[in-house]
Amino acid sequence: MSTANAYDAVELIRTKRDGHRLEPAAIRWLIDAYTAGAVSDEQMSAMAMAIFFQGLDRDELVEWTQAMIATGERMDFSSLDRPTVDKHSTGGVGDKITLPLAPLVAACGAAVPQLSGRGLGHTGGTLDKLEAIPGWRASLSNAEMLNQLNSIGAVICAAGAGLAPADKKLYALRDVTATVESIPMISASIMSKKIAEGTASLVLDVKTGSGAFMKTREDSRNLATTMVEIGKGAGVNTVALITDMNAPLGRSAGNGVEVAESVEVLAGGGPSDVVELTVALAREMLSCAGIDTDPAEVLASGKAMDTWKAMIRAQGGDPDAALPAPRHTEVITAEADGYLTDLDAMAVGLAAWRLGAGRAKQGDPVQAAAGVSWHVGIGDPVRAGQPLFSLYTDTEDRIERARQALDTAATIGSQPVSARPVVLERIS
Amino acid sequence: MSTANAYDAVELIRTKRDGHRLEPAAIRWLIDAYTAGAVSDEQMSAMAMAIFFQGLDRDELVEWTQAMIATGERMDFSSLDRPTVDKHSTGGVGDKITLPLAPLVAACGAAVPQLSGRGLGHTGGTLDKLEAIPGWRASLSNAEMLNQLNSIGAVICAAGAGLAPADKKLYALRDVTATVESIPMISASIMSKKIAEGTASLVLDVKTGSGAFMKTREDSRNLATTMVEIGKGAGVNTVALITDMNAPLGRSAGNGVEVAESVEVLAGGGPSDVVELTVALAREMLSCAGIDTDPAEVLASGKAMDTWKAMIRAQGGDPDAALPAPRHTEVITAEADGYLTDLDAMAVGLAAWRLGAGRAKQGDPVQAAAGVSWHVGIGDPVRAGQPLFSLYTDTEDRIERARQALDTAATIGSQPVSARPVVLERIS
Repeated sequence: MSTANAYDAVELIRTKRDGHRLEPAAIRWLIDAYTAGAVSDEQMSAMAMAIFFQGLDRDELVEWTQAMIATGERMDFSSLDRPTVDKHSTGGVGDKITLPLAPLVAACGAAVPQLSGRGLGHTGGTLDKLEAIPGWRASLSNAEMLNQLNSIGAVICAAGAGLAPADKKLYALRDVTATVESIPMISASIMSKKIAEGTASLVLDVKTGSGAFMKTREDSRNLATTMVEIGKGAGVNTVALITDMNAPLGRSAGNGVEVAESVEVLAGGGPSDVVELTVALAREMLSCAGIDTDPAEVLASGKAMDTWKAMIRAQGGDPDAALPAPRHTEVITAEADGYLTDLDAMAVGLAAWRLGAGRAKQGDPVQAAAGVSWHVGIGDPVRAGQPLFSLYTDTEDRIERARQALDTAATIGSQPVSARPVVLERIS
Repeated sequence: MSTANAYDAVELIRTKRDGHRLEPAAIRWLIDAYTAGAVSDEQMSAMAMAIFFQGLDRDELVEWTQAMIATGERMDFSSLDRPTVDKHSTGGVGDKITLPLAPLVAACGAAVPQLSGRGLGHTGGTLDKLEAIPGWRASLSNAEMLNQLNSIGAVICAAGAGLAPADKKLYALRDVTATVESIPMISASIMSKKIAEGTASLVLDVKTGSGAFMKTREDSRNLATTMVEIGKGAGVNTVALITDMNAPLGRSAGNGVEVAESVEVLAGGGPSDVVELTVALAREMLSCAGIDTDPAEVLASGKAMDTWKAMIRAQGGDPDAALPAPRHTEVITAEADGYLTDLDAMAVGLAAWRLGAGRAKQGDPVQAAAGVSWHVGIGDPVRAGQPLFSLYTDTEDRIERARQALDTAATIGSQPVSARPVVLERIS
């Protein structure tokens, strides 16, 4: 029996608007009918705004997420002989963690199917960064992906259009109707894609602070808890770390510059915060996957670098080729002696974006060599005249506005401060 | 300088969503851009839902209403040598008050430009009722309307499509997105049309109770106060009466039957509650218009009946012709002795609607002879076997479901109750 007319969209909007629960079958009908065009954009945007105010409870969210997954294909990694585990970050400035993390966890024995996106706004996209590597390509067929996971254990590639098409349609609608900033809908959007990817376990890196989408600890905790509940409700072993995003991660934000920093980490060096977060997330992922191996040891052994190179080569890239150099470099120096006490992640992200590392709208090209490096970390001493930032771009006239973004980004104090912890909280 | 791109719709939705005020120029831009199609339906429905939750304050509402008026034509009655005054009812069962009221107030010396609508749902439409009169037509040109106001003083006709087109578009959107039930938006919708009609004074009849759109006294008071504020903000002398709609008005609900009852009132008879409310509203309208005449005296004098006949004739109708008789009449009798202690307005309205007096969707025809009469009023004694209701229709198979609607509509008690007051409160 057809259930096409089992529900009335207006009645469902009214139900949610008035603070009542949507029953599971109603949620499935709504998502299906919206994807098929039987529920209109104006009805779905009114529903989205009603959800913004009234929320979705745990059961509604699990159903909503599953319904979005059911509108598309779902990947199946059950034929692999290793446990699958994935990581998702809510996005931060200088967040290149996926690059060293995926090969590290694969080198420890897990399979890491890391389907990633491109950047919009002040936080970069993992695919944009990797495309700075000569020859590397983001698009793989499902067969190529499975094959690479079998042989190498790690793959970072573009998510196919077939995963959760309802989410794609709904996200585009939310973007133009001021209904993005809803924790239940953000959670369902992220989790529908991640669950459709078919991973058995998932570790979430929920950023908090000025450079993150969630500015307060409370919102971040709420988002993390909600996503963990959805994951568990869908049978995915899910854990979240809440991590600091007041200051940017590492010493660079951009495309090629972040690849270079990631390679430093894989070679046993690199900024201590990037190393710390990479190892912390690797521990969580391995624990979820039931693998009892110390990722710090594997990182030190060079095996993660081997996996990185194999992973890059498998996707057509040359891991030993020089990364593109920018046509223009500008150095900003310190004006006074003291200590770096604060570095504004949002300002740094904005500068990198203005230099050409990010895009203004979907489909715009990005510059592989664009970005920002900062030469001191929080707590480090600074001397007047010493280089603070280097700005990289292929387009000289972008430099002035990037400089403006950095005008008040660095705070130089008279007393040293201790470096802040990166991992703030664990939610499981 | 063009201001077409002065605002961003997403930013405005977010502003309202987060509980902030919309500035006057932003409201004007939003309404204009929506009417022109530059702001999309999905953006406006998200805005409507945000307003449902966050409201609009007095200044925002005045601006919103004025902006909707400005999208269309505004009538001008300044050339008339009498003061203009109009009445609007929020809609009730058996509410035929406009029919005797307009000629009564005109007979007292005011000009009454009563632009009316057709019915949807359980409350009838004034134009549907008048169209039961052989030959009467609802559509007049602006010149015909002005001419009739000059010569007779009263006109009841269809509102032209040119008044507040933004309201028309927005109402259709709200209807499919569960955003109708918002007091600010209901107020702005009603008042934009009434103010565009160009009346100098306006008396609002805000119904409250089971048969009304507003079920509680608090909601009704809130709606009345909001509309009075908008009217005054727009320079229209506005007063509201809150009146009872738990029981239906008079002794009939339908089309021709309500015309017949109205003519009884104009002839000096008719149900006491209809007379009471007609005179009370006439007093308010005359007071607003600055006319010191007692409408009860004018009603008794027969002058209002003369104006009625002239008004009907001017629009092609024959006030002395017999009203259409229904093909089928069914009588429901009382099952026990006692007193009528309650009569459910919603049930009576639903029965009349099911008999063919109303329409299921816009554009459907209505039956001129369809409706319900009840033969006792609240507090009256009832004897078993005595006729309680008469049901009128041209379609015999509609009778069964109409009977069902009336099954529990009348409450017969053992003790008499006194008739309830019609006018509950005055807001100015």
